[in-house]
Amino acid sequence: MQPKPGDRIKVETKDEVIEGILMPRGEYQDESIIVLKLNSGYNIGLNREDVSNIEVLRESGLAQKAERKEVKHNPKLPTISILHTGGTIASKVDYRTGAVFSSFTPEDLLEQFPELAKIANFSSELVSNMWSDDLRFKHFEVIAKAVEKEVKKGVEGIIIGMGTDNLAVAAAALAFIVEETPVPIILVGAQRSSDRGSSDAYMNLVCAAEFIAKSDFAGVAICMHEKPDDDVAALFPAAKTRKMHASRRDAFKAVNDTIIARVHYDSRKIEFVKKDYTRKDKARKIVIKPAMEEKVGLLKIHINMFPEQFSFFKGYKGLVIEGTGLGHTPGHMPNEIARIHLKIFPAIKEVIDSGCVVVMTSQTIFGRVNMHVYNKAVDLAQLGVIPGEDMLAETALVKLSWLLANYPVEEVKRLIGQNLRGEINSRITTDEFLDE
Amino acid sequence: MQPKPGDRIKVETKDEVIEGILMPRGEYQDESIIVLKLNSGYNIGLNREDVSNIEVLRESGLAQKAERKEVKHNPKLPTISILHTGGTIASKVDYRTGAVFSSFTPEDLLEQFPELAKIANFSSELVSNMWSDDLRFKHFEVIAKAVEKEVKKGVEGIIIGMGTDNLAVAAAALAFIVEETPVPIILVGAQRSSDRGSSDAYMNLVCAAEFIAKSDFAGVAICMHEKPDDDVAALFPAAKTRKMHASRRDAFKAVNDTIIARVHYDSRKIEFVKKDYTRKDKARKIVIKPAMEEKVGLLKIHINMFPEQFSFFKGYKGLVIEGTGLGHTPGHMPNEIARIHLKIFPAIKEVIDSGCVVVMTSQTIFGRVNMHVYNKAVDLAQLGVIPGEDMLAETALVKLSWLLANYPVEEVKRLIGQNLRGEINSRITTDEFLDE
Repeated sequence: MQPKPGDRIKVETKDEVIEGILMPRGEYQDESIIVLKLNSGYNIGLNREDVSNIEVLRESGLAQKAERKEVKHNPKLPTISILHTGGTIASKVDYRTGAVFSSFTPEDLLEQFPELAKIANFSSELVSNMWSDDLRFKHFEVIAKAVEKEVKKGVEGIIIGMGTDNLAVAAAALAFIVEETPVPIILVGAQRSSDRGSSDAYMNLVCAAEFIAKSDFAGVAICMHEKPDDDVAALFPAAKTRKMHASRRDAFKAVNDTIIARVHYDSRKIEFVKKDYTRKDKARKIVIKPAMEEKVGLLKIHINMFPEQFSFFKGYKGLVIEGTGLGHTPGHMPNEIARIHLKIFPAIKEVIDSGCVVVMTSQTIFGRVNMHVYNKAVDLAQLGVIPGEDMLAETALVKLSWLLANYPVEEVKRLIGQNLRGEINSRITTDEFLDE
Repeated sequence: MQPKPGDRIKVETKDEVIEGILMPRGEYQDESIIVLKLNSGYNIGLNREDVSNIEVLRESGLAQKAERKEVKHNPKLPTISILHTGGTIASKVDYRTGAVFSSFTPEDLLEQFPELAKIANFSSELVSNMWSDDLRFKHFEVIAKAVEKEVKKGVEGIIIGMGTDNLAVAAAALAFIVEETPVPIILVGAQRSSDRGSSDAYMNLVCAAEFIAKSDFAGVAICMHEKPDDDVAALFPAAKTRKMHASRRDAFKAVNDTIIARVHYDSRKIEFVKKDYTRKDKARKIVIKPAMEEKVGLLKIHINMFPEQFSFFKGYKGLVIEGTGLGHTPGHMPNEIARIHLKIFPAIKEVIDSGCVVVMTSQTIFGRVNMHVYNKAVDLAQLGVIPGEDMLAETALVKLSWLLANYPVEEVKRLIGQNLRGEINSRITTDEFLDE
């Protein structure tokens, strides 16, 4: 019998016998590899030519559907809307269907996370079903409109479930798009899929729900583990947070800023770190400005660059440069050692002259661009490159796209270096750096 | 009198009177701005039209040359070669000449850092005079040949003074190029120029010299502040270190690794953290393999990318992708929301089919690429993208350039994911992450 994706199968090779769920083949994956999802939650790829036998243990069509309890509305509890966009946090259903993507109904959600029923009533909607690495500016518009629709129903807050790769970028984009909100809009992800014992999905969701139900915060934020263990979740500032580890549960870090608050998982105590946040006010109307400009790029500076890497962006509406140090690029190099005269500054000038707004950020991630210290950066500023202050490059990218779609160019140039949503911190925040 | 660059001048505007050294005009800086170096060491740009009067206080040609003491060779002390390449650490002379670039003679050096005379005898050579952001692969070849020449003279070790922006990248490149060395080769920079009270140049240089004179370490490393205060310098691993702050003195951090050692500035005590380093052995011959391939690029993944950003690298010999999370790129997007069908995977395939070696690293910086967890990355691996393990993107870039210039392509593909110089840590090193 030919196994189908979603079937539980037993595969024999000359070295071992492996059981798992047969995963669907990726579009660019050829037939020589079969991928199994193991009980550990990890996938493993096997060369088909090494496989001597495959036995189907259980067909996906025959998989028992868990019996669903009817979810009752509890009038004593607030209502929270959960918007699903895909990602690891939504990957539980893989075991039953073999599908990589899945949606949650409120029933699915409460079946998996029964504790949620004590915190709030939930409504749930699938907005998109994708990995966050495929997100485009256009998706932020769609997500924001779904948020607006839910908020207008009068809910106590919104939880957006998303893959973690671009979760912080999406949070920054929503912070710009949502100009006013009466209630909190909290993005939640998981670094380990929720079918694994070590998953962080459960605590992140529960803490986000507690924060919405019990705090007076309004605005966009991220709720993820603050530490590697299941003690404390942090509420991270939407436009000043970055995924800083490929796999750890505490991968998210506030950069040049502090966290907003923490939720202690055992005691459910909410502890605010920031004092100057916008308060919840259900009389306030939600206001969104969802347009985003498509032709905005990001260029990370590296050693041995060529001018063509810059002039590529001629005709773009916006470009964020992730420079070195205080905001540098290679310059012009009438350089005897390199035996080459590369005209990189003229290439940057060409891009600016084509009508592109060019903003400088730093690849050091921590700290602030300063284009007055070295002649090189003074030259760049003279060319028209605008300092991005202490903004994250990814935040500058979505801010630039959003500004270009909503303001005239001269206004964009004025606003890009000014703080609109907490994305620029005017105070010196050296005390927030790494291990201190 | 028309002031010349290097002159100490007094500038009056309607608001203030400012004194400083007139800086030379950058090639792309127009005449409407004049730049002064203030006593603080910072530069300030003034609009010429705001200036009502300029008075020359002291012409640079008249600047008193400090009286030089003859430096005597002390036969009881070891000899260290200092190679200068430019950067902030070499920026003291600005005050006297107004020039941004400068070289140090041993006399200059000991005049400025008299304590060095107690540690070693010094010889000094100017290799290049540039900001490190202008470094190209070709410069590493030149620096390595200068290192080889000095080591063959029988010195106790080499200090390379360099700008900090690409100092860690240069250290990684030298770690690959220098296959064997009998003595230490230590890169040193400064985040604040040595004419400022808060400069870190002094302690970094003294600690590097102490480490060379008193420890048994051989190989390439970086010596910079471990903490913001002047207590401890750290010796950082050449291929696993990154500049993580735009301005702080402790900007350098070991990533997915520990530091090699620390030098306590007051006690001059050397404390090794790593135990498995290569020992100094003056009978060992220096072996360098200085060739680097020019056509190697780096592409940082960001939201809303277009396939052209990938196909740009068609015909390159090597490309490092700085993916999201565990090593992801946007894929193919038959995406109704984005109303666009972008073929990014086919563009990556085109680049690979053109003969380019493509390596995946992660923009999370910390953690390790894992291309077996999600289908997306399995697809990328099937296309021929090679996982870069826990290598820094910048290290992967110089390693790829070096491998391509020295090995056949099939060997490059095998070696890029294997540890050659400590650039890949096979152990899980989650305990080295940020605040822990």
